[in-house]
Amino acid sequence: MSLFDDLFYSRAVREIFSDGNRLLRMLDFEVALAKAEAECGVVPATAAIAIAAVSKTFTPDIRAIARAAAQAGNPALPLIQQLTVAVKERDTAAARYVHWGATSQDVIDTGTVLQARQAFDWMEVELRSMCAELATFADRHRETIMPGRTWLQHALPITLGWKAAEWLDAMLRHKVRLREVRERALALQFGGAAGTLAAFGNEGRAVLEKLARELGLAQPDIAWHTSRDRVSEIATGLGLITGTLGKIAKDISLLMQTEIAEAFEAAGAGRGTSSTMPQKRNPVLCSVILAAAARVPALVATALSSMVQEHERGLGNWQSEWETLPEIFNLTAGALVRARELVAGLEVDRERMRANLDLTPGLIMAEAVSMALASRVGKNSAHEIVQRACRVAVEEKKHLREILQEDTETGKLIDNAELDRLFDPSAYLGVTQKSIDRVLDRAAAEEEEF
Amino acid sequence: MSLFDDLFYSRAVREIFSDGNRLLRMLDFEVALAKAEAECGVVPATAAIAIAAVSKTFTPDIRAIARAAAQAGNPALPLIQQLTVAVKERDTAAARYVHWGATSQDVIDTGTVLQARQAFDWMEVELRSMCAELATFADRHRETIMPGRTWLQHALPITLGWKAAEWLDAMLRHKVRLREVRERALALQFGGAAGTLAAFGNEGRAVLEKLARELGLAQPDIAWHTSRDRVSEIATGLGLITGTLGKIAKDISLLMQTEIAEAFEAAGAGRGTSSTMPQKRNPVLCSVILAAAARVPALVATALSSMVQEHERGLGNWQSEWETLPEIFNLTAGALVRARELVAGLEVDRERMRANLDLTPGLIMAEAVSMALASRVGKNSAHEIVQRACRVAVEEKKHLREILQEDTETGKLIDNAELDRLFDPSAYLGVTQKSIDRVLDRAAAEEEEF
Amino acid sequence: MSLFDDLFYSRAVREIFSDGNRLLRMLDFEVALAKAEAECGVVPATAAIAIAAVSKTFTPDIRAIARAAAQAGNPALPLIQQLTVAVKERDTAAARYVHWGATSQDVIDTGTVLQARQAFDWMEVELRSMCAELATFADRHRETIMPGRTWLQHALPITLGWKAAEWLDAMLRHKVRLREVRERALALQFGGAAGTLAAFGNEGRAVLEKLARELGLAQPDIAWHTSRDRVSEIATGLGLITGTLGKIAKDISLLMQTEIAEAFEAAGAGRGTSSTMPQKRNPVLCSVILAAAARVPALVATALSSMVQEHERGLGNWQSEWETLPEIFNLTAGALVRARELVAGLEVDRERMRANLDLTPGLIMAEAVSMALASRVGKNSAHEIVQRACRVAVEEKKHLREILQEDTETGKLIDNAELDRLFDPSAYLGVTQKSIDRVLDRAAAEEEEF
Amino acid sequence: MSLFDDLFYSRAVREIFSDGNRLLRMLDFEVALAKAEAECGVVPATAAIAIAAVSKTFTPDIRAIARAAAQAGNPALPLIQQLTVAVKERDTAAARYVHWGATSQDVIDTGTVLQARQAFDWMEVELRSMCAELATFADRHRETIMPGRTWLQHALPITLGWKAAEWLDAMLRHKVRLREVRERALALQFGGAAGTLAAFGNEGRAVLEKLARELGLAQPDIAWHTSRDRVSEIATGLGLITGTLGKIAKDISLLMQTEIAEAFEAAGAGRGTSSTMPQKRNPVLCSVILAAAARVPALVATALSSMVQEHERGLGNWQSEWETLPEIFNLTAGALVRARELVAGLEVDRERMRANLDLTPGLIMAEAVSMALASRVGKNSAHEIVQRACRVAVEEKKHLREILQEDTETGKLIDNAELDRLFDPSAYLGVTQKSIDRVLDRAAAEEEEF
Repeated sequence: MSLFDDLFYSRAVREIFSDGNRLLRMLDFEVALAKAEAECGVVPATAAIAIAAVSKTFTPDIRAIARAAAQAGNPALPLIQQLTVAVKERDTAAARYVHWGATSQDVIDTGTVLQARQAFDWMEVELRSMCAELATFADRHRETIMPGRTWLQHALPITLGWKAAEWLDAMLRHKVRLREVRERALALQFGGAAGTLAAFGNEGRAVLEKLARELGLAQPDIAWHTSRDRVSEIATGLGLITGTLGKIAKDISLLMQTEIAEAFEAAGAGRGTSSTMPQKRNPVLCSVILAAAARVPALVATALSSMVQEHERGLGNWQSEWETLPEIFNLTAGALVRARELVAGLEVDRERMRANLDLTPGLIMAEAVSMALASRVGKNSAHEIVQRACRVAVEEKKHLREILQEDTETGKLIDNAELDRLFDPSAYLGVTQKSIDRVLDRAAAEEEEF
Repeated sequence: MSLFDDLFYSRAVREIFSDGNRLLRMLDFEVALAKAEAECGVVPATAAIAIAAVSKTFTPDIRAIARAAAQAGNPALPLIQQLTVAVKERDTAAARYVHWGATSQDVIDTGTVLQARQAFDWMEVELRSMCAELATFADRHRETIMPGRTWLQHALPITLGWKAAEWLDAMLRHKVRLREVRERALALQFGGAAGTLAAFGNEGRAVLEKLARELGLAQPDIAWHTSRDRVSEIATGLGLITGTLGKIAKDISLLMQTEIAEAFEAAGAGRGTSSTMPQKRNPVLCSVILAAAARVPALVATALSSMVQEHERGLGNWQSEWETLPEIFNLTAGALVRARELVAGLEVDRERMRANLDLTPGLIMAEAVSMALASRVGKNSAHEIVQRACRVAVEEKKHLREILQEDTETGKLIDNAELDRLFDPSAYLGVTQKSIDRVLDRAAAEEEEF
Repeated sequence: MSLFDDLFYSRAVREIFSDGNRLLRMLDFEVALAKAEAECGVVPATAAIAIAAVSKTFTPDIRAIARAAAQAGNPALPLIQQLTVAVKERDTAAARYVHWGATSQDVIDTGTVLQARQAFDWMEVELRSMCAELATFADRHRETIMPGRTWLQHALPITLGWKAAEWLDAMLRHKVRLREVRERALALQFGGAAGTLAAFGNEGRAVLEKLARELGLAQPDIAWHTSRDRVSEIATGLGLITGTLGKIAKDISLLMQTEIAEAFEAAGAGRGTSSTMPQKRNPVLCSVILAAAARVPALVATALSSMVQEHERGLGNWQSEWETLPEIFNLTAGALVRARELVAGLEVDRERMRANLDLTPGLIMAEAVSMALASRVGKNSAHEIVQRACRVAVEEKKHLREILQEDTETGKLIDNAELDRLFDPSAYLGVTQKSIDRVLDRAAAEEEEF
Repeated sequence: MSLFDDLFYSRAVREIFSDGNRLLRMLDFEVALAKAEAECGVVPATAAIAIAAVSKTFTPDIRAIARAAAQAGNPALPLIQQLTVAVKERDTAAARYVHWGATSQDVIDTGTVLQARQAFDWMEVELRSMCAELATFADRHRETIMPGRTWLQHALPITLGWKAAEWLDAMLRHKVRLREVRERALALQFGGAAGTLAAFGNEGRAVLEKLARELGLAQPDIAWHTSRDRVSEIATGLGLITGTLGKIAKDISLLMQTEIAEAFEAAGAGRGTSSTMPQKRNPVLCSVILAAAARVPALVATALSSMVQEHERGLGNWQSEWETLPEIFNLTAGALVRARELVAGLEVDRERMRANLDLTPGLIMAEAVSMALASRVGKNSAHEIVQRACRVAVEEKKHLREILQEDTETGKLIDNAELDRLFDPSAYLGVTQKSIDRVLDRAAAEEEEF
């Protein structure tokens, strides 16, 4: 339990990466190992039964493990020692077969992989919910016209649904990526002292295969004690997701600005109120997502630079993964949950969006006019005419349409009816609807595939 | 040309990411755009012909573009202006259709994608060569016994070929990843001012599709001006590769240490000599690869944190990609070329490897003994017995075999014949050969697929 | 010359970190070394004279050095070889004394330190100009009232000068920091092959001291071939500066938003215009500064993680500094120049600022009212009363003052005259003026000190 | 309590950055605030007394705060609400003055600064101990000859004490840096809602000064809500320290390699033993320090990139500091404690060092010979002669001295007596002793200053 558990994180994923669950997943390895070894005749069947039975009720003494880990250099050794003592109480003979032939890294890495699988399971559900939420939102607001903004300046009209469809488009790619990452990453680690499974004589591969099957993990062709691309790819995959979530939160926080006021986080009881300013509604969800997007990239860099591991076991760089990977999972999960909540509860002020479009009196339609003129006088001349008219409009605080109408030159080129059409933002939305459709169709198709 | 071009980089990839090639690829976009627009009846066919013809011989004034970019905020505008002037000289009417309906980001992003494609083409060839080199090396040294090392300490015997097979195993995954990344990343960027292709009326999608086909790029469902996962995924994919290359270089540089002296970079003329110490042979190739592995992760972090781009065009973060992505490509390419050269030319001292195995008199076979004993007295007792014997061996500077032989307790448990076998490293290699076979088979299978 | 030289960088600093200047500064080392050695009787005086004379006119063949560096692992060796050949042509005897007793790292590191000194000289001038610009700006706008914004929401009134004073406050600390960093960083590197100056017998320290004096650098107590804190501290110092510059650019880019429109980058000829939208004025300077602020932090991480250098010469990590440090200098310098230009040319719309204050009808003065009420009914009750009133104001689209006036409860507590005062933003500015004065006084005092 | 508390961290510093202590330091702010306000007549003296009295025994409900923080966006608001309730129970009137005029960021930032002060206090003591330990070690081993290594190859003889003096030299600079950082960083944060202290009318500065004095913190000239250079400088200062500690651990871990075996971590009970290999003694302390050195740089990058905070309160980037800064402190503290333990307990094998010097038969003295020859035949010729001799020595597995002796050319230039001297490593140590003296003198002088 930490002060920031409910603010920055998902309780479910925090639980997956808790000390307790870490040790449980390591025990899963030990139990499955004994079972696989028993099936291969490497250890007595009774030993495997005893180890499994004891593990079910065995509660590790975390405090003692933490203390001993400082000596051992990792928590595996003390956990195994505690387990061995517990097994001994039940079956002395069985105790000698705990962790048989495996090395600390086997149980630590495989434990992490099992935690990662739980987190992936959670995350896939969340990703699908997020995509569903975005799809609904994009469809609902497919015709909600608002200013498109480049360089933080009004550019051309867009629709809010189209904006959301661009978010969704990226999230759909993340779903695919995560599946690819998952498939590669969820592999058993099992090599013994130096990765060769030497302690098993001729039985090494057989035990490995049974063990992997028992745990539902992929069978690696070779040990990957110091080939960390599997681990680091998890980090990069999550880093990419967090980047997109940060982009969504950034957009919404900008829309929530007092002067823009086009969209708002749902006001929960007490959500986002200020300790001093009673009128405020703060983008709390956005701040959490943006904090994650600010923190994860550096953690990914750690995961990547830690790949340079020495010989058959890393020195410092392997250890640097132990808290970094969970942190990346936790921050990504926290951001994902909040992003879904953010989109699901978003309050949209369509009128304000429409009003903001008119803030620059007609200037947002300048390109429309410019393109219409260009087909007559060339792009450069058209650009210059319109730019001049815009400048006049700004200086004289008049509507661009008025300036153009009064201008004898453009007056000759474009009549009133055409000007009406050119200054209608809903008539200048290009492929907006087609793009939304394409993304929604893809979302639906992918969802069916699942 | 920079002082470090031949040391850190691949000239071929430097050329791909040169200013000149960047502008050429941007011109590719402009030519294809005009052609696609002409086919859709958006611009006159003569305009497209003129633009294509002029582009063939047109040489941009880089210095002038650089100067103008400081005003425009990007190099696209000044390039287009220069091109327009050049087209005007040939065909005044055509000039007005240069860059018709597109925005700076369309041409900059698509230009980058086209550069990336060239770099991917290069990299795939290099990756395949690297894998082939590693496969040959792994096979050649499949029985070259050497100490496996964990925590930088002797652990158990391994073979050099097995070590290389673990490197190869990771590189094979990188080949698969790069294909996945490539497929997602090589997409056309085309959206016009705000991404909606509004300037094209009903023709937007048709132009987009023709343009993508013309350039051989994927057709995006929606503009991705501020959905940067495609770009950042290139960065992460390359980051993962560099991590593995760094691991290989780290291992080899450690093997080259004076005291270990098991492997050496090929001595080229002048390669790795010292300005003051005539006897030295420095791991120059390793240093270059390790420098890349030290630099790329942070650049990937920049690519990830830059994903949080505002609304319909990023402000600062988009711009931060322009040099970061090429730098990642350049460093990865440099490391890859050198890694292949490193493996291809590696000189291996098998005798020294064998001699190093005996450095700790018998201790490297301690696990073998321990496992043999464990089946009789339990793992913990066995561990203690052997640990004690090791301590005595170290203190009395005797061979572990001798200590065990003299020990009445173990003497009773293990006879001389078994001790002979237990102290033969080549008899304690576990799944080494099977693992090598599996990796080599996968390498061969994947190569056929291509 | 690169496409981005004028956009992202300062030409002056790019020149300092050019290949040409790098080699010149390395030659400075060689000339000073020979001179110091001659003074100590280590080499003949004629040799020092010849080396100095030749170096004056000697032009290194950069292309050849680049090619040879790929073999040697660094550019020092080939440079020295070229220099030796050149000296030989003039004085065969002298040629044997080029680089006498020094190692490649001595000349590379000291060369970098000499480049850094040039860059520091440049940067101090620029920092002072930036501070002067900010001081002028803060003073000019000390009473320009505008909305203070927290969480991107209106909070309380501030003044633009006060906002700038907070920027200045940080920049003044950077001036101090840079002086501290400079003092520590500008130290001679000189240790010979392993750092012990063994080749000089008893003369090592004497040569070192003379050499340091000759170059105007600090005399290190001990070689720092692998103690890279000096180098990395430069990186962190510059990273901190870039962070503040990014903050300034972020604020201004937000103020430039179409809906806020309170401040604008100076419109230069062609600066910030769009290729498609004639009405736009893009924050080009901001984008460049923000791009630097997005890129530098990761480069600093590289500088920090590269500190873990092996024994008496780093392997890969030392090499990773060679381009990273110049890049950090270049990006920081580019951002600094543009930030000064940004502040110097900033166009401020005071009326718009005043108008924006009234956007939320009176809500921005809610705290003022709340505090006034609190002294009567307690903070919590006051907060609740005002929060309720705010909600009504928002819902009924009335001015908060009106709501409060109509409310019988608050009507009893606060009379009209007090309400007038409470809703005057210029009466609710607290320590604004005092804070500005304090910062400006410090700026003036520090400037005198120089 | 976490599984890694004793392995990676310092319990003392973990305690400083615990949730409990965080809240206590925030309470310190609230108590001091009320006191300062009472002294300035802003709140009744009785209120200050009540708040102080209640705070002494008040125990925050962390779980409830954590839950409420998810709504409020930070833990300050719920803490203040709990405190207010507690004060109300004692003195209803006083309750309304809790947190009077302050904003959440004031108490959060100042709380963090108070935690940082505790951590700095701890760290200064530790840094001094580390320096003392290194000084003792450097002195003890000032004549312990060993191979100097560049590029991981033997270069020239050095002494272990000299190597440690280079480590110490850097640590002494860190002591100075940390004092500079501390002085700038330990400043009060106090500005109210937007930083202007508007709620205090004319009393703002007076309250600020009293409050700063009460807490023993520096009085800032202006609020620094979004000027985060103070915070980020802490991060960079600690990052630099961790870099040096990593360098020390890297060196020692390399010396511990089986083949080198020159130095060893002290063998504690169970420290560094392997779960499978009884003969091993793993560099556990080194691994922990190296893990910190692998993780901290990226966290520093987060601290730097988070400086780009919006307007008067950051959105996401401020929040990203909350766990990042403590993490940097914790990792640095953990590494520092272990580095001192590492140096204090280091077991050195002088004989092995001496023996390793002779591993390359005489080659390590090649430079000595080369320099001696150079004064006769020029540096280049000398270099070539010796390089040739080295090659022969390596190929024929003879001692370099022998080769040179047999060579008629060199035989004429150097007689036997000189060869004896040239092959005595203790006669080729240059400024080693002088450098050690200079560093130790500086260490002693600085220690007295304290």
